Formats: sequence, C-alpha cells, structure tokens
Amino acid sequence: MTKLLQSSIDRRGFLRRGVIGAAGVAAATIAACTPNGLARWTYNPTSSALPGSGVSPSSAASALASLAPTAPAMSMGPGSPAASMAGDDMDAMAEAVIKRFPEKTDKVGNQPIEPVMDGSTKVYELTSSAFPWQIDAVLKPVDAVGYNGTWPGPQIRVTEGDRVRVIHHNNLSESTGMHFHGQELPNAMDGVPFITQPPIKPGETFVYEFNAGPSGSHMYHSHHNATDQVGRGMLGAFIVDPLDPAKRYQVDQDIVWISNDELGGFTINGKGFPATAPIVAKLGDKVLVRFMNEGVMTHPWHLHGQPFRVVARDGWPLGTAEFTADTLGVNPGERWDVIIDCVNPGTWAFHCHILTHAEGHSGMYGMVTALVVQG
Amino acid sequence: MTKLLQSSIDRRGFLRRGVIGAAGVAAATIAACTPNGLARWTYNPTSSALPGSGVSPSSAASALASLAPTAPAMSMGPGSPAASMAGDDMDAMAEAVIKRFPEKTDKVGNQPIEPVMDGSTKVYELTSSAFPWQIDAVLKPVDAVGYNGTWPGPQIRVTEGDRVRVIHHNNLSESTGMHFHGQELPNAMDGVPFITQPPIKPGETFVYEFNAGPSGSHMYHSHHNATDQVGRGMLGAFIVDPLDPAKRYQVDQDIVWISNDELGGFTINGKGFPATAPIVAKLGDKVLVRFMNEGVMTHPWHLHGQPFRVVARDGWPLGTAEFTADTLGVNPGERWDVIIDCVNPGTWAFHCHILTHAEGHSGMYGMVTALVVQG
Amino acid sequence: MTKLLQSSIDRRGFLRRGVIGAAGVAAATIAACTPNGLARWTYNPTSSALPGSGVSPSSAASALASLAPTAPAMSMGPGSPAASMAGDDMDAMAEAVIKRFPEKTDKVGNQPIEPVMDGSTKVYELTSSAFPWQIDAVLKPVDAVGYNGTWPGPQIRVTEGDRVRVIHHNNLSESTGMHFHGQELPNAMDGVPFITQPPIKPGETFVYEFNAGPSGSHMYHSHHNATDQVGRGMLGAFIVDPLDPAKRYQVDQDIVWISNDELGGFTINGKGFPATAPIVAKLGDKVLVRFMNEGVMTHPWHLHGQPFRVVARDGWPLGTAEFTADTLGVNPGERWDVIIDCVNPGTWAFHCHILTHAEGHSGMYGMVTALVVQG
Repeated sequence: MTKLLQSSIDRRGFLRRGVIGAAGVAAATIAACTPNGLARWTYNPTSSALPGSGVSPSSAASALASLAPTAPAMSMGPGSPAASMAGDDMDAMAEAVIKRFPEKTDKVGNQPIEPVMDGSTKVYELTSSAFPWQIDAVLKPVDAVGYNGTWPGPQIRVTEGDRVRVIHHNNLSESTGMHFHGQELPNAMDGVPFITQPPIKPGETFVYEFNAGPSGSHMYHSHHNATDQVGRGMLGAFIVDPLDPAKRYQVDQDIVWISNDELGGFTINGKGFPATAPIVAKLGDKVLVRFMNEGVMTHPWHLHGQPFRVVARDGWPLGTAEFTADTLGVNPGERWDVIIDCVNPGTWAFHCHILTHAEGHSGMYGMVTALVVQG
Repeated sequence: MTKLLQSSIDRRGFLRRGVIGAAGVAAATIAACTPNGLARWTYNPTSSALPGSGVSPSSAASALASLAPTAPAMSMGPGSPAASMAGDDMDAMAEAVIKRFPEKTDKVGNQPIEPVMDGSTKVYELTSSAFPWQIDAVLKPVDAVGYNGTWPGPQIRVTEGDRVRVIHHNNLSESTGMHFHGQELPNAMDGVPFITQPPIKPGETFVYEFNAGPSGSHMYHSHHNATDQVGRGMLGAFIVDPLDPAKRYQVDQDIVWISNDELGGFTINGKGFPATAPIVAKLGDKVLVRFMNEGVMTHPWHLHGQPFRVVARDGWPLGTAEFTADTLGVNPGERWDVIIDCVNPGTWAFHCHILTHAEGHSGMYGMVTALVVQG
Repeated sequence: MTKLLQSSIDRRGFLRRGVIGAAGVAAATIAACTPNGLARWTYNPTSSALPGSGVSPSSAASALASLAPTAPAMSMGPGSPAASMAGDDMDAMAEAVIKRFPEKTDKVGNQPIEPVMDGSTKVYELTSSAFPWQIDAVLKPVDAVGYNGTWPGPQIRVTEGDRVRVIHHNNLSESTGMHFHGQELPNAMDGVPFITQPPIKPGETFVYEFNAGPSGSHMYHSHHNATDQVGRGMLGAFIVDPLDPAKRYQVDQDIVWISNDELGGFTINGKGFPATAPIVAKLGDKVLVRFMNEGVMTHPWHLHGQPFRVVARDGWPLGTAEFTADTLGVNPGERWDVIIDCVNPGTWAFHCHILTHAEGHSGMYGMVTALVVQG
C-alpha cells in the first residue's frame, strides 16, 4: 500500500480516504466575530466527510465536488472594501488547482524495480532515453530524458554488502555516464566520463558492478552534461538498507522525495502540484521521508501541523545530533532522512517554503503536496 | 528599554550611549608604519566618547558630527597612487549612509500587542490592509500589505498551552488566509485556503482559535497568494514561552529578527539599513536573537567581534547539538535562536554575509545593523 | 559481458598519464577484472608527477597527453541510435577540458606567508592592488584586486594568543578596509570603514594589531565596497592554530578551500576547473579541508568515493555534534572543517553539486577538482 500511495494514488482512492477540503474545516469549532463583539458558532460535524469515517465512494465523489470549503467567513458590513473581481478570479484559479489534487498523470516515476539474480548478484537493467513527461495533466509535456522511461528512474533498493550490477544501455542521442552518489565504489565504477571511464556513447552499454555501501539514502544520476541531463530527469533513488536489521528504520511508510528545479519547473518526484502525490497516513503512524535534492537550488521543506525528527544526512545517522524541526533546508546533492510522528489529524500542506516555488497569483503550484493524517 | 531599543531608538538616544564611530577607533592603540619601518602611535583616549563614559548629550551631538573616524591612515608618500575622485565620491556616499544610522522612519513593526482577555482566552484582533511603508527615510515608500498597519505585524507572545484567539479582519482588496507557522493546530485552524478553510474574502472576518504550542520562535503569515502577500509584509512573530519557567531563556534582551527579500528589498523587521534598529547591550549581557526568514532566499547572518551560541531551531531546543558560530545560514521558513554573550565592547557590524544584500558601491544598505556592546 | 565492460577502461593509458593527472590515478593500486577474474596491478609511483616531486615539465606534459580513457563501451548493434555529431562534439570538448587538468597558470594564491618578528609580535605586510588574474590558462585574465598580487591573498597562519600585526598598504585606486572575519578583535581593529576606522585611502597604510583568537579557520577580506572588492579577490585565509597542541588537528594534509562566485565565475582558491588544484593523498591519509565561502551563493561540496567527517564550523569544534556527510552546503561567510579519511583509492571528483557551477554542455568547469587517493 505504501508504494501505491507514493506513486499512483488516484482521485477516487484519495477521496475514499475522505480527507481533504471541507472535512477539516467542518469538523472544527470555529469562533467568528461581529463588528460589535465576539460570537461563537460551531460547524455541524455530521455534515462532513471525516477521515476514517468509512465514507462511501459515492459520498466521496460528492466530497470531491465540495473540496473547497464553502462556508464563508463573516461579512463585516459597511466600511469593508468590496471584493475585487480580480481577487475573485484569483480565488477561482486557486480553488480550481486545489480541486485537481491529487491529479493523475499518464506515468509516475520512482517505482521499485526488482533485480534479476545472477548467482548472488542483483542485476538491474536501466536504459537511458528521451521521452515526453507530464509534470501535471495540463501543462504541455516536457522533453525529458531518464532511465526506463520515467522521472525519477526506478527506485533501486538493496541491502548493505549486496553485490549489485547495473547494466546501463544508452539510447540517448548523446553520451552519458552514471554516478552512484553516496556509494563507496571502486574508482572505475564511479561514472565520471574521462575521469573514471569513457563516456557511454549512444547505442553503447556500460556495466557498473560493486558491493553496496554505505547504507542509507543515496541516488544515481548522470555525471555527463549533467546540468542538462540531471535537470531533465536522469536520476533516481538508490536506497541501501543496513545489513543489521536493528539499524533499519522501524516506520509505517518509507517515502522517497526527490526534488528538481530545472526543465520541469519545481517538482517532487518529477511532478508539480497538483500532480504531486500526497502522503496518506494513519494517526500514530511513523512516516519516513527521504529528501533528496537533484536540483540546483536549496529547498527548505516545511510541514504543517506537526514537526519531524531529522535522523540522518547523506545516509549517515545523526545519532546524538538528531534534531526536531518543521522546516529543513536541503541543498543540491544532499539527502536528509526525517521521521514524522503523525500525531495531528487532518490534511497538512507540505511544501518548499521558498514561496516562489509554491504559491502565486493563480494558487499553488510546483513544490507542494500534502500529508494526510487520518484520525 | 528592550522594546525601545528594538523599535524606536533615535539618533540622540543612540549617540548618548556613545558608541559608534570615532569612539571605537579612538580608544584603541593603533600601530602605523612609514615606508621605512614601523612606528607606533596611540590615539588619545581622553578625547573620545567612550561607551558608558557618561558623555553628555552635547558631547554626544558633537560625536554625531564625527561619526566617521577622521584620523587618516598614513600617506605612503611618493609612489603611492592618487585617490581617484570616483573613490572619494564612493567614500562620501558610504559615510553619509552610516551617519544616517540608526535612521528614524514614521512607523516600525514588530511591536508587542497585548491581548484582550475573554475568560482565560487571549484575544488578538488583526486587520489586514494595504499601506505605504517606509523601508528607510529616503526611499519612496513601498506599497505594503500587512497586519494592523505595520511590517512586520504586531509581535504576539503567549505561553505554551494558552488558549489563543486571533480575529482576523480582511481589509485587503483580495482574499487571504493566515497560517501559524510552527504551531500544532487543529487542522481547521491551519489557514490554508481551499485546504483547511475558505479564503477570507475582502471585508470578511475569520477567527482562529487554538491552544498555543509547541513553545519557541514561530511566525504567522499569509498562506494565500503568498509569494506576493508575504513578500509585501503579511507576516509577524508568534512567540510561545515555555510553560515551565525553568525552560525559558534567561537573557537580558530578547530580539526578534525577521528578514524579507522581496518588495522592500533586503530588510530586517521591515527596514533596510540605515533604518534598521541596532541592538544595544551592556558588556556581559546575554542577548537572544530569534532569526526568522520570511523571504525567498537563504541569509547567512554574520556578527562581528564575538560569536553566538545556536540554541534552538524552529523553536526546538538543540540540546546536545548546540553549537557556536559567527555566521549562520537561515533558510526561508526556518527560525533559529542564538544567544550572544556580549563579551567584546564596541560597535559591531551584524549583517547578511551575502554581500549583494549588504554593501555596494554606495556603501552599506539592506540587511545590515549593529550590535553595540557598551563596555 | 559485464566483466569485459568493467575492464574496458584502459587502465594502462589512464595510469600512464599519472595524476589526473599523473599522480593520482597513476600511483594507486587498482583492482581490474578480466573476463576471467580479477587481476591486481600497481602503478609505478616513480613515474608520476607528485606534488612537490619536482617532476619536469616534459614528463608532466606527456602525462597529460592520454588523460581520457579511450576504450569504448560495447556497441549494442542494430537498433541502437547513431551517435549524433553534436554529441561527439560535446564529448570532445569535455575530454579536452579534462586533459588540461590540472592546468598550470602563471600565479596561484593562498601561499603561506612568513611573518617578520618584531619582538614577540608576528608582523605581516599586505599590499592591496589591482592586477590581471588567470582563472585558467585559456580565459582572458580578469581584472582582479587583492593582497600581494594573488587571489586569494597569502595564507596567514598563527597560533592562538599570538600578537599579530598586519600592515596594510592600499595601492588601489579606491579606499578599502580589512576585516578579520571570525576574530575577536578590539573594536578599532575590526576593519569596517566609518564604523570602526576611517577608510584606508589610496596610498595610505593602516596597521591592524591584535591577539589572535579564537582558534580555527578564519578569513580576512575587504569590508568596503565589499560586493565588488571581495568579489574580485580581496580575501585570504587566516588560520589560528589552537594554543593547546592536543587540540590541533592530527592530519596528513591541511587544505584551505576558499570559494568565490562573482567576477571570476565559479572558483576554488581563485581558479576554475581545469586550473583548480587536485588534492593528492595516500591511502590511509587524513586530509583536512577547510571550506570557506567568500562568494554570494551557497555551495554544497560533494566528494565522490568516500565521505568526510564534519568537525568544526566557523572555527568552533562541533564536538558531540560532529557528523558524517558526502555533501555539505557552505553559505557565504561560513567556514566548515572536514576530515577525509582516504580509504578508497582512485581519482575522485570533488565539486559543487549545484550542477550549473560545475558541468555543462562543454564539460566540466568552475567549482570542480579531484581528490586523488594513491593506494
């Protein structure tokens, strides 16, 4: 289920969980005021689609129709400015984009790939090629390049010490090279053309083979013409689980979160809001998020409603230097693992806090998603 | 006095403290050289306005006249290049701007707001509106938007666990929403239009109510059309003191330092140098600075003369991960608390170390202020 | 096929050249595989151009002639796309630039300067002036300004508590001031014109004198018209060794790494790739790298092949907050000390992971160098 949620949750499934929009507002007691004093009023919770309330698909469909809370705030009456039409247009655009969330696109990246075993060696085949890629369902697809036709490429997950072989076919019209960022490889496997290997020419194949390590959140990506190739999608997650089971994360979900900020604009796992995937969890869940920055800008990720514990950087446990935060700057090339203790039910915005990467005149876009905690 | 210093210290009061400019230079022994060797000379300390020396207002006025140290460095004589007129013009501009510091403007933000009590609930009324705002006294005021007519809005300070009600009247010409960044609120109070509430239309009022927590340095700001609204001033500090008195900071001053970098250029608490407020402390004081970044760029704050201890991030104590530094990068959305042990008397530049945010051909500007330690 | 491809790197040719040059790859023991297994061989270190080994220009030249591995990867045969001419041109440019590495330029900065003793005072003379500066051997030299004719200026290294005198002659055509970033100086020695001293006019001399401290990685740089002056080279390292020998780093090499990103583009110690200096170490060495950022952007430094331990920031030991990483964001004004345990032989790219600072259509440039671990 975790994989499903990370990758391909559709609108129907999302709504079935009954979480966004009216529900949150509806279930709360809200105080409003008049110009002359305070008045309290309470939303009627029976009219709302509560998280985990077993709401039926059909009522979920109707919930879809009312994703945007419609109960207005109080009018202040005389003396207050008139709403401008421009403002109403902005609200309409902002609402429309929220209603599209989570938007389905034709393909999603970061899908787990299973190895073929060659004796005890885990063998993965990756083919680089160019393809159109939907950042969301409305924008014209971009001219991406990537591994096995998706952005990010397949998620490779192995165990520390595993013998790993990655067979890389280059179907691009230019050369490339593949770097396993964070891995301690034999030098010849490091993937830097003209330093550790010849470039992999179009039509050629290069085979990388090494023992996986160190453990943690790592990445693979092009190291040739890299501003362009990585900026257009040649990247993926390379997760190495610790050999010692006691050192593995004990969490309910394990989310990879790779950001980019070039060709496709501001993206998480190759998608921009509203086509980004929400994280849907239950109250009390521990959710691991592995932030990985494959872009060229720093992105400070901010979670609403509850903080996260920052437990590792670049795959290395922080140990006594662990800390708690609600906003975490992740620089290009860095990986940071955080664990969210889902203690606060609701639909929580989860976004880059560089506001130009997240929200403008026409509403939210780019590096925005949501954590949904079903209470 | 803290409030005064943060907000409205004027030139006279500032100089009465006798701190900037000539004083510092004057009190020191300085070694100068000739082309043929070293010569030592000593400024006459009796002629200088020493910090804490009880210099009279009239001598303070004369100190004003000599803010810029006038004792020249030695001429090297024959063979040294002539000072270019362009260089002299630059110096004159640089001196002029320093002499304006700390410049008075018509209004300052970040002023404490006292709650009205409704039983045990602390009630704050905030009205969003558009207004002209002086970044300094010379630049044309910018078209700001903000809370209660200032940028930043009022400083709200409560205690962990307090019941807090914020009544938000929208007098803007467009909708808005108010997010309490860092607080663990009921979802309906999270302030994100179309996700947790309807947008607050022009003329409408929305009431936020919740129990304050977690403790620490937090913020409130718009979460609607946020690049524009926050970039133009819709933000303020939301400080939550720990319930346990033993966990509260034991400091002599408690400074909020909110940075922005959009509409008003590079600002600290809504002002650019020389209209920024200096921090004036006594030797031995402990000064808490709460860095809060409401802009869209990272700002590494650098203090001259003494380092600071970094004790909390996003309101969460760092504990054993505390560290000492003299330069600290603060990303958008992050809050970092640092404590300065004022051990070194003098006037110390305190500025963003991205030099394009602080100092150019015409001298200092933007994200610059000073820590004045009165010895 | 896999093993064949793994061995397809022309190790003979690669090693023949010596470091990536010559020393690096050349001197390492590398495990190579044949279709039938692994074979080990060892490069003859006597043929390599080691730093300080007095290698002659002619042998260095021949070492450079075969820098790029020439053995191709396998052709996939029918169905694979043809290599585009554009792609081949790109590869040729990328190879050409790698072959130039490490490129000699007419002058290098960051050279140790020995003090003249005046009693127990360490006296350094620095003259600011304008000069042409080679970022690499191909680009037109830039119009730099700096100390003693190099960018960075001389590396000053003293011991905590030392009495230090820096005699600063200004031979620029404009004023300047000199700030010892990170040092706890008497205020009059802080180097900020119009705040702590008069500007140092062209032809004038100013003398800074103070007791060195705190220990650690610090910097000196202009604090007048600083965006321009620092951006064009007025900066240098100021290293203060701890008084207590037990607190000093026990390392095999001590590398200063100052980055800039204005006039000269993206530079390390005043040079852009391929004119940057490689770090050449032996297997088992501990290499200290002192990252110092004198630019206006954050740079996340990424080392291939092995991580580093981050042990100090701004000169202050991190103690229990030490951490391990392979990518470290360094903000302007910050200094971070890291120790590389050289455990993995080979030539490892070491670069800023903002790819636009490191690698584009014509290959690598700017903030790129290599760690060469000789096995």
